[in-house]
Amino acid sequence: MNVDDVVFDGEGLVPAVVQDANSKEVLTVAYMNRESLKKTIDTKETWFYSRSRQSLWHKGETSGNVQQVSDIRFDCDRDALLVLVHPRGPACHRGTYSCFTESLYHGEAKQKTEGFEILRTLAATIAE
Amino acid sequence: MNVDDVVFDGEGLVPAVVQDANSKEVLTVAYMNRESLKKTIDTKETWFYSRSRQSLWHKGETSGNVQQVSDIRFDCDRDALLVLVHPRGPACHRGTYSCFTESLYHGEAKQKTEGFEILRTLAATIAE
Repeated sequence: MNVDDVVFDGEGLVPAVVQDANSKEVLTVAYMNRESLKKTIDTKETWFYSRSRQSLWHKGETSGNVQQVSDIRFDCDRDALLVLVHPRGPACHRGTYSCFTESLYHGEAKQKTEGFEILRTLAATIAE
Repeated sequence: MNVDDVVFDGEGLVPAVVQDANSKEVLTVAYMNRESLKKTIDTKETWFYSRSRQSLWHKGETSGNVQQVSDIRFDCDRDALLVLVHPRGPACHRGTYSCFTESLYHGEAKQKTEGFEILRTLAATIAE
């Protein structure tokens, strides 16, 4: 499997889910074209394609909040990417760790595992 | 924030990243339209829109591998959803836990945290 096997959509894009390699939190959903995917692999930092600006962008280029890439996976249809990263700062332009900060629906009273985040952190720290 | 505030694309769709609420692994990227999102909230199980079949599908309807929804989050642009679930079986039609089983690129020799999955499982079990 290489870049040419990825199934890009009619606009030449593929959705890329960016996940923290340690905490496993999902940080961002962005889009890559073939060029930004190649740059991501070459530089080991995330590059995306901005649909609004219609140009490539190197995450963290101005803010310094780059995302170092540890793994890129593809799904069974080869039309979605999962990019595992070590973020060097907030993922969101609002300054938050993740772009997914608000809930549309809560099925449980509280994220029950939150209080045990220390164990996830411990696992990640041991693994470093 | 409610369903009407979600920004659907020109085809009436929004990408939905499905994540295991306990292990935090990303299982699938699928698409929802307004109707499938409402059904997901109403039934507390995932419903998607199949772009190839052009119809709604209730994940697990035939296989029994439904995904019970614990939380739905939206991102800063309101054009992507993160759906946290308790899966009742494999997410992938190939029978695998996740649709993201293969790597396009490895930046590290090995997923270093894998050996400590037991700690994540412990955290999730304590939280149950």
